[in-house]
Amino acid sequence: MKRRPYHILVCNDDGIGAAGLLALVKEMKKLGVVTVVAPDKQQSAVGHAITMNSPLRITKVFRGKKFFGYAVSGTPADCVKIAIRAILKEKPDILVSGINHGSNTSINIIYSGTVSAATEGTILGIPSIAFSLTTYDKPDFHFAAKIAGKLAAMVLRKGIPAGTLLNVNIPPVPEKEIRGVKITRQGKTRWDDTFDVRRDPNNKEYYWLTGTLEIIDTSSDTDQIAVMNRYVSVTPIHYDLTNYRSLPALRRWKLNA
Amino acid sequence: MKRRPYHILVCNDDGIGAAGLLALVKEMKKLGVVTVVAPDKQQSAVGHAITMNSPLRITKVFRGKKFFGYAVSGTPADCVKIAIRAILKEKPDILVSGINHGSNTSINIIYSGTVSAATEGTILGIPSIAFSLTTYDKPDFHFAAKIAGKLAAMVLRKGIPAGTLLNVNIPPVPEKEIRGVKITRQGKTRWDDTFDVRRDPNNKEYYWLTGTLEIIDTSSDTDQIAVMNRYVSVTPIHYDLTNYRSLPALRRWKLNA
Repeated sequence: MKRRPYHILVCNDDGIGAAGLLALVKEMKKLGVVTVVAPDKQQSAVGHAITMNSPLRITKVFRGKKFFGYAVSGTPADCVKIAIRAILKEKPDILVSGINHGSNTSINIIYSGTVSAATEGTILGIPSIAFSLTTYDKPDFHFAAKIAGKLAAMVLRKGIPAGTLLNVNIPPVPEKEIRGVKITRQGKTRWDDTFDVRRDPNNKEYYWLTGTLEIIDTSSDTDQIAVMNRYVSVTPIHYDLTNYRSLPALRRWKLNA
Repeated sequence: MKRRPYHILVCNDDGIGAAGLLALVKEMKKLGVVTVVAPDKQQSAVGHAITMNSPLRITKVFRGKKFFGYAVSGTPADCVKIAIRAILKEKPDILVSGINHGSNTSINIIYSGTVSAATEGTILGIPSIAFSLTTYDKPDFHFAAKIAGKLAAMVLRKGIPAGTLLNVNIPPVPEKEIRGVKITRQGKTRWDDTFDVRRDPNNKEYYWLTGTLEIIDTSSDTDQIAVMNRYVSVTPIHYDLTNYRSLPALRRWKLNA
């Protein structure tokens, strides 16, 4: 039996003012004591960047007169490191990241700041979950927050295997249209990137990244397809990137000849 | 039989002026036609960040009067995307990233911009290799460049399984002290992060990340230990982060109750 309330660390990549973060904080307060440590500005697609060549600042953020959390002048991974190593006196029981505005399925996992915060939490030994609502348009975080609460409660009770985090993607549909929760694997997709070439007022070229996502693997057990089929997708991910299946073939290469 | 010379794309994360990049370019010119597309400034530890919310600039860089390559105002992953999608007319036969100043073994892989460039190349269907010399002090890229040439030639001949890249770490010792090349897996280490708290001239606090690396797994088949034992470490890595081993346990969770 735990003698004290759960301590929940909340982070994100959209910044400390994001609506998805507020929805997550509100829900987590039902489960325990919440500390918010989040980037002071938008940090989408920063991947697992950390700040080593410049210092970080921590600013206390208030909502009205009430203390809300700590804004950090860095990336999501920076926020988690500084929370654990410099702000908090004790390790939290769980880290939740999000709720991200936009999908973090398939190939997008590797670009995701939201997932990165949860990865850093896992590295530091904290059960961690990343939550994303798979839309940018008029996001309604009501159901996403509810499922976040349910999953966080479950992880607080059951834990997660060491070195594993949960990457959760929630379809942007009303609760009654959700078909359930599905354990998935990371899907295979590819960005068909294009660069929009424009000219600035000085007639110099600049390039803006855009593109469309191509789905390579349409299996129903992938995160991408599960969400399209209106399931909440829960994918266990880790940060051992070794491709064990290609070890035997490589070991036959005559590298020492 | 190939009718044309190999086309080699060279990228890094230390920036287009880095000594490790120059050494790699020089070696690659022995194998074919080289295009350099690299960040216009240091981009270490940016992980797999990409730039979506601001435009990118491309600047042609000359060494003396000779065209050297393209400097991009972005991350290593940006460089690879823009090289393939906007600069090059045809897909290169291989992408090499580095030679990084410093180790990219074990947990550092996920923070690495050098590895990120090779990951992005792999995503775009190009056989890709990341090279790192595991020292910051007075780096001598002579042997590292030589082994890079050998491995690149081998990959041009044999290819790499789709979706896999090679992460190569080279010990900073003279060639005669190298004990060979070893196929390894990603090691388990952890940064014992600490934040150095200082005060600026206005007496405001700032935080600087520092720390030491703790080795958790001391097996000789890991990248970290192989390099310590003076082997060149070659690790096949991929970007499917699914932890397949934890799928069965999670599927027993009553998530739809």
